[in-house]
Amino acid sequence: MNRQILYDNQDFFDGYFALRNQDINYNDLLEQPAMAELLPNLSGKAVLDLGCGFGQNCKDFVCRGAKRVVGVDISEKMLSVAKDKSAAPEIQYRNMSMTDIASMDETFDFVYSSLAFHYVEDFSKLMTDIYNLLAPNGMLLFSQEHPIPTATIDGLGHYNKDENGIPVSYTFSNYSQSGKREIHWFIDGVVKFHRPMGELLTAVARAGFTIEVVCEPTPKDWAVKKLPAIAKEFIKPSFLIVQARKKA
Amino acid sequence: MNRQILYDNQDFFDGYFALRNQDINYNDLLEQPAMAELLPNLSGKAVLDLGCGFGQNCKDFVCRGAKRVVGVDISEKMLSVAKDKSAAPEIQYRNMSMTDIASMDETFDFVYSSLAFHYVEDFSKLMTDIYNLLAPNGMLLFSQEHPIPTATIDGLGHYNKDENGIPVSYTFSNYSQSGKREIHWFIDGVVKFHRPMGELLTAVARAGFTIEVVCEPTPKDWAVKKLPAIAKEFIKPSFLIVQARKKA
Repeated sequence: MNRQILYDNQDFFDGYFALRNQDINYNDLLEQPAMAELLPNLSGKAVLDLGCGFGQNCKDFVCRGAKRVVGVDISEKMLSVAKDKSAAPEIQYRNMSMTDIASMDETFDFVYSSLAFHYVEDFSKLMTDIYNLLAPNGMLLFSQEHPIPTATIDGLGHYNKDENGIPVSYTFSNYSQSGKREIHWFIDGVVKFHRPMGELLTAVARAGFTIEVVCEPTPKDWAVKKLPAIAKEFIKPSFLIVQARKKA
Repeated sequence: MNRQILYDNQDFFDGYFALRNQDINYNDLLEQPAMAELLPNLSGKAVLDLGCGFGQNCKDFVCRGAKRVVGVDISEKMLSVAKDKSAAPEIQYRNMSMTDIASMDETFDFVYSSLAFHYVEDFSKLMTDIYNLLAPNGMLLFSQEHPIPTATIDGLGHYNKDENGIPVSYTFSNYSQSGKREIHWFIDGVVKFHRPMGELLTAVARAGFTIEVVCEPTPKDWAVKKLPAIAKEFIKPSFLIVQARKKA
């Protein structure tokens, strides 16, 4: 099942919508704060958000002074929520696949993507397409699932617990076997693409980018206070964040 | 026990010497071939080898046309083998710690280091020191133990085997807890420094380098044929290799 069918599937959508509306979730406690720390000054900038989903980030970019924001998502259902809840005159939402962005006839100062690139099969092409859409000195900031949790082919990567039920270690396999992974997430048959760290980062570099930051975010004290179980992130990371820049 | 005392310790030295002289070892089957693929053209170049050990690579750099090679190692014992077995007019061996290279009054076109940086506590300083020693457009190529196998604080990271004794997965912990790790390797109390991938690569970038390649080498068919057990590298990598360049 590809991402288009995935996010437009009603069962998946309902599960995902509920997850993102929970008060306490990993995105809000860990991934989003880490991404926010790496945002550039957006005042007067043109921004492209790939896999914008419900559009919360597009709205935030406008609050931070962006003069133009294009939010791209393959799911009509997600964009209908975005247009309803995260509208602004500066934002344009487009229902398209991020595999088709090479056809866009625009330039951006900043390309952003939160937790969507692991759905894309051809990562090298994606990097080249983004590089071509960026203005000189433009920045790419993206997060995706970390390659350790995406590695295991049978989907059975797991934490091991001690006698008190506290996670103490993590077991995984197939890290260096790049490729498709079919897992259960709300529904069966969710397809993601596992790429080892080296393959990923070399593709970013080969597209022409200068890698500035590689971040495997860990929870701050306030996040652990809110959700003590999130301390298990110190055992193995869930997210990978990369900040990279096009040459000036 | 620091690296100086370590490699000059007779028990450790004997164990390490025997390991490297085995016909079949991970360095020769996996790490060294991957490093060789990433070597630049060395014709007429000045080369610095950090943690040069027995000097095999220094000798190889001369064979590849380097006009001047400086091999640095903290262990006198290792260097006495190097001076005996890997001597050449173009090579100068120096008994010093790589933490002291900022005092060197020379410039190099290429800085190389095989499996030594995980012994260094202050990685950011090391990156800055190397950057300062490189000529414009100069290259750094280094390997070190991969952060997944160095992660587990109690040293008990391990493969799990199926009923036939075949490794099927890997269990580890403490990945995001940067710092000292004391392990047993031939002798007790061998000290290494674990750094998560993000911390490592961001330090390379922040020193000013453009990261060109991040490689987690996997064994080629010929290596698996020679040592079938090395196929377990596809479960989790043992080595990390980084190629980075100083701006022109």
